[in-house]
Amino acid sequence: MTGPARTYCVFCEIIAGREPAEIWYEDDTLIVFRNHLRWLPIQLLIVPKEHKTQEEFWRDDMERASALAVELGKQHAPGGFRILSNFGEDGMQSQPHGHLHLLGGRPLGMYVETVPRALFGR
Amino acid sequence: MTGPARTYCVFCEIIAGREPAEIWYEDDTLIVFRNHLRWLPIQLLIVPKEHKTQEEFWRDDMERASALAVELGKQHAPGGFRILSNFGEDGMQSQPHGHLHLLGGRPLGMYVETVPRALFGR
Repeated sequence: MTGPARTYCVFCEIIAGREPAEIWYEDDTLIVFRNHLRWLPIQLLIVPKEHKTQEEFWRDDMERASALAVELGKQHAPGGFRILSNFGEDGMQSQPHGHLHLLGGRPLGMYVETVPRALFGR
Repeated sequence: MTGPARTYCVFCEIIAGREPAEIWYEDDTLIVFRNHLRWLPIQLLIVPKEHKTQEEFWRDDMERASALAVELGKQHAPGGFRILSNFGEDGMQSQPHGHLHLLGGRPLGMYVETVPRALFGR
């Protein structure tokens, strides 16, 4: 490969078939694979095949990615699910390559940490 | 009002101006207001003005809503943010009217509850 050296991106490696992943869906522009974290029965990543930032993904590709995420949620987590993206340090974003998390398969509880239980009230 | 009785929806009441809310943005189809929960410095709801389900919102309106959410996140939570929707019981969805949460203003921690700390590893 000529051109400037690219920073290693594990999502790009998965998309290129050079890193293993359990792929659940794939089309021309999007790929869905299981998160290597296995906290939840359903913990999928919806990822653009092109390397782009979280911001670019949310600004440009969400029309199709959002519909796909909901479809997969209904299919694999009929008891309910959560779809989210983290941006930057306060959001605890860990991968620069844009992605949606699809989470489900058991009660998920809160969507932020360190909320005093008294404020949450359930 | 004639026609079938509608179930009370607090988001529809806010949109109609019959319930108070701190509105941060409004156009023909979307409205953004502060969550009445005040857990976080930035805790906004991006809501379609038309009453529709979470699924319908994510399937049909996300192209514009997603771009708006990111724009507001960058503007008001430069240290990072999280955008999410909860679907159904496992997701802990509490309002039937579709909406995105935009969360930020401090480190948000985890995006699900009851993940053993050892698994999380940070």
